[in-house]
Amino acid sequence: MNPIEFFFDFSSPYGYLAACRAAEIERAAGRVLKFTPYLMGAVFKTTGRQPLAHHPLVWEYAQNDLARSARRHEIPFNLPDPFPVATAAACRAYYFVLEREGADAARNLAMTLYRAYFVDGINIGETDRVVEITAGGQADRAALSETIAGDDAKQHLRAVTSEAARRGIFGSPFFIVDDQAFWGHDRIEDVIRWSSDGPW
Amino acid sequence: MNPIEFFFDFSSPYGYLAACRAAEIERAAGRVLKFTPYLMGAVFKTTGRQPLAHHPLVWEYAQNDLARSARRHEIPFNLPDPFPVATAAACRAYYFVLEREGADAARNLAMTLYRAYFVDGINIGETDRVVEITAGGQADRAALSETIAGDDAKQHLRAVTSEAARRGIFGSPFFIVDDQAFWGHDRIEDVIRWSSDGPW
Repeated sequence: MNPIEFFFDFSSPYGYLAACRAAEIERAAGRVLKFTPYLMGAVFKTTGRQPLAHHPLVWEYAQNDLARSARRHEIPFNLPDPFPVATAAACRAYYFVLEREGADAARNLAMTLYRAYFVDGINIGETDRVVEITAGGQADRAALSETIAGDDAKQHLRAVTSEAARRGIFGSPFFIVDDQAFWGHDRIEDVIRWSSDGPW
Repeated sequence: MNPIEFFFDFSSPYGYLAACRAAEIERAAGRVLKFTPYLMGAVFKTTGRQPLAHHPLVWEYAQNDLARSARRHEIPFNLPDPFPVATAAACRAYYFVLEREGADAARNLAMTLYRAYFVDGINIGETDRVVEITAGGQADRAALSETIAGDDAKQHLRAVTSEAARRGIFGSPFFIVDDQAFWGHDRIEDVIRWSSDGPW
């Protein structure tokens, strides 16, 4: 069975809620989630869509809905300030770890970055914070910092994001199950159902 | 127990899906749905939001998601052409029937108008079609036509729509359960849960 592709942006609160439910989804769906962080803002430019916080009326609704959705699934959640933030550094760190240490380590980093931002309010838009979180106590921070600011890392992230846009992916969370696209934390039940019971 | 307020636009396909599930929602929630059609487009102007069909990428996704959601709930659905249409005549006819014949008759009309548009492809943006559907074989079509084009009907609909905007309602379907707002066909499960199990 194909994995479920899971696209998300590190600044997306609904993406965070979905990521926190990754193990639950995998158990219920009987498939593995493949994490793919990308720069949703770059795709917004092509679709003309606006971030959540753009319209006061929608944003007021979304703040309540986010807190309510988090409580329903017993996920710790605090809306960070500043919000949103740029997530290129977080994404590049993710792909750096994916290449060096594999999918499990990269997924752990994704969860650590997400929790840092949406639980502890650490500004993961700042490269220094991302480097601290990624390196922990062990690695050479200067080397890591240089690597994720390098051309290879930039180019790789641009390629991931372009490929997502080419495939019609524009939101966070955004799931692909076989040939079907599901957009939104509120589509998780459908993702599970499509994954396990096949097409309807 | 308070009724569940159900706001919708007659040109909204997700509003149509929600309306088709009205009896299911009422049974599961143990509360009555109060139908309130309004002009979502008028509120879009204040929020800067765009209709579903505005962005090609989002629209392509939405067309598939709509058909898939309809199949899942075994609701007949055909995307009409033209789409969307203006829905002032449909709304005014609804409030005309609500005042004359009461909530049940108005709700029946709402379902008939929705099915005419989203099953049979009848253009309910045209006042003549709305008058035919509303009058059936019985009433005086000319009088009905005049009434729903009259100042009172226009003013009433403007008041309904302004009041919705004032209360922060901006989508379709849009539900209010006690003090909680729920936006979207994908929030129906939450609407039911909040209605029956109280706050979480």
